[in-house]
Amino acid sequence: MAIAQSTAPLNPNGTPMPAKDAELVKNGSSSLKAKIDTSLLTETLATSLKEVPKPEDLVFGQVMTDHMLILSYAPESGWSAPEIKPYGPLSLDPSSSCFQYCPNVFEGMKAYIGPDGKPRLFRPELNMVRMEKSAERVALPPFDTTALLKLIKRLVAVDARWIPRSKGCSLYIRPTIIGTRAALGVAASNHALLYVIMSPTGPYFRTPSGISLLGVNEHVRSWPGGTGGYKLGLNYAPCFHPQRLAAEKGYQQVLWLIGENVTEAGAMNFFVVVKRDDGDLDIVTPPLDGTILPGVTRASVLSLLSAHPTQTSLPNLSNKTRLYTHERPITMTELAAWSAAGRLLECFVVGTAVVVTPVSRIGWQDRDIVLPEHKAVMGPVTAALYERLVDIQEGRVEWQGWSATCV
Amino acid sequence: MAIAQSTAPLNPNGTPMPAKDAELVKNGSSSLKAKIDTSLLTETLATSLKEVPKPEDLVFGQVMTDHMLILSYAPESGWSAPEIKPYGPLSLDPSSSCFQYCPNVFEGMKAYIGPDGKPRLFRPELNMVRMEKSAERVALPPFDTTALLKLIKRLVAVDARWIPRSKGCSLYIRPTIIGTRAALGVAASNHALLYVIMSPTGPYFRTPSGISLLGVNEHVRSWPGGTGGYKLGLNYAPCFHPQRLAAEKGYQQVLWLIGENVTEAGAMNFFVVVKRDDGDLDIVTPPLDGTILPGVTRASVLSLLSAHPTQTSLPNLSNKTRLYTHERPITMTELAAWSAAGRLLECFVVGTAVVVTPVSRIGWQDRDIVLPEHKAVMGPVTAALYERLVDIQEGRVEWQGWSATCV
Repeated sequence: MAIAQSTAPLNPNGTPMPAKDAELVKNGSSSLKAKIDTSLLTETLATSLKEVPKPEDLVFGQVMTDHMLILSYAPESGWSAPEIKPYGPLSLDPSSSCFQYCPNVFEGMKAYIGPDGKPRLFRPELNMVRMEKSAERVALPPFDTTALLKLIKRLVAVDARWIPRSKGCSLYIRPTIIGTRAALGVAASNHALLYVIMSPTGPYFRTPSGISLLGVNEHVRSWPGGTGGYKLGLNYAPCFHPQRLAAEKGYQQVLWLIGENVTEAGAMNFFVVVKRDDGDLDIVTPPLDGTILPGVTRASVLSLLSAHPTQTSLPNLSNKTRLYTHERPITMTELAAWSAAGRLLECFVVGTAVVVTPVSRIGWQDRDIVLPEHKAVMGPVTAALYERLVDIQEGRVEWQGWSATCV
Repeated sequence: MAIAQSTAPLNPNGTPMPAKDAELVKNGSSSLKAKIDTSLLTETLATSLKEVPKPEDLVFGQVMTDHMLILSYAPESGWSAPEIKPYGPLSLDPSSSCFQYCPNVFEGMKAYIGPDGKPRLFRPELNMVRMEKSAERVALPPFDTTALLKLIKRLVAVDARWIPRSKGCSLYIRPTIIGTRAALGVAASNHALLYVIMSPTGPYFRTPSGISLLGVNEHVRSWPGGTGGYKLGLNYAPCFHPQRLAAEKGYQQVLWLIGENVTEAGAMNFFVVVKRDDGDLDIVTPPLDGTILPGVTRASVLSLLSAHPTQTSLPNLSNKTRLYTHERPITMTELAAWSAAGRLLECFVVGTAVVVTPVSRIGWQDRDIVLPEHKAVMGPVTAALYERLVDIQEGRVEWQGWSATCV
């Protein structure tokens, strides 16, 4: 063995890297590369507008609005002038990275109409920061998060008539970056397309009661050192087949396990409410150990729970009940034991698309852990979080600047 | 806890699944769904043909041939009539699964010109079977592998002038299936596009000596229960960022570890040649435990090694040398110990793109394990495998029907 020699950066095929690429390797997020010039935005509006579906007919993510935002990246010129233009297909070389090697990232955000009639967004800067990290994880070019958020707000303003007015409905926003390098050699994509599309949405789940989960560990969604902590398209496709197997058994979503440890439920963060010996409540969710998506709703739920009852009173929850939040591993054996002891009061999943949704039962080793039934479907903590979050998101309750008008 | 109830299949949003989809869930690979009717093939030839690059100018995967094969899948009608048509862009909805959730699979195959002047393929049926398994893993529709292979042979015939004649050069073939469901709900893609593109290629690595590897375990490529054993586009993008970090340190490829255990090198299978106490050779590669791609070249190398010297004599290897193949875990500590004892004779990586390529050094914990130098760059076992494989692939040596003319 000898001491490793540090040499100039190499291409994967062993040739020396061109100076410009070597620079990028050393300085992935330099502000120069990331620059998006919002002053160059061009807007081409659709000549005929689509009919907006009624709120009760909305199925998540099926109908897109009239317009999209799009810009492209090339190593020699950086990000192109942004365009808002009629929603339409992308034309891409069949050898593009996005098809072959999947360096594709996305975000999920929502726009709401406040009581003042103005569009608003919920903590959008958190989505921008997460998207920046996701892009870096799959070696996509960096981008100016402030500029992108400004452009998203403009797109929302252009298609504001698409934001549903009904409570619990919203305009789902899907920022996406895909790698568009057109070559088959296995290497980072030095070309990219950044686009934002939007879809009006009602409740994600149309289930009269809570959703059912099946604990699965023969397929593993994420692992230490993997990519489960980033919002990458590639985290999702491996879940489709296990999801089908769960559906065959009559469960709606998979509860992803590593061994016995709970990670996520479907594509949502997982919470349980456990009664303590002193009558107060423990509210537990798995920690951000790299296998869990750092959800914006997850962070918001933890924050709201910690604020009760000292900084705020969550709806219909007694101020005498103390809520103790814990980010720590949860095992299936624990869940079963809490259930058997009558201490497992509620279980719910959270995410931008689903907001806060109750769980009714969890299949594990050919048995079901059945959650207690509640008159209003949601248990008191689940209901309190749902109500308060939606009130903040839709601008009826002001809380720490989480929701702000965007035009 | 109560016994789990088995109910009718459900959509992920909790609504009952339409009968047709429920059927698909229960019978993913039914021959009806998989049917590709090769008699419906239409061919539209390019009106102007591109210039074929000289073999010495070839860079892997950068220039595509004149034509491509394409067909599409819809749940109501199955696979469309196949088309061979001029190479050109795909037009896809921005909400398509392939961009958002990455249910994308591919294969790597090569066509060669034999001494008889006819195109030939190397064990293509193995690629078809693997692609079928990969598609199932990400819930893409099934397809008739025999029909697809027939269509690929036809495409090779159409673009046969693109197959390089020089030794070690070939026409790389990239069959691809991408999910094209145009909706944002997280669910299996019930629409797909299957296409095949081709690119003339010389040696993948243009390195005068063997390639350098950096052992990495802070990023983990694959995991038990994950997707490392399938050829999915989504296995590749997470490797780009660690690959950049390795390039910065002057290494060409990452040697992917789980803890101390070697899995793959870059996107290639990894082999070592170790001198035994009795003077014979142990040739070791990690086992197919779900974290390793079941490579066609890997299987072929193991098979050839086992055949020496009883069934065949590998080029320039003594018939007195016994080669003992082992598929078992390899740790970095073992590699370092073998190296220190002077027993680590050769190390090489294999794959369709790289064939058999020697490794010169492996970085690990700020030191290098340096492989012995050989006059002809490749050590004797590496050279013997490379020579024999290329001879079989290019039709100069017949071996167990591995290479057959395809038109």
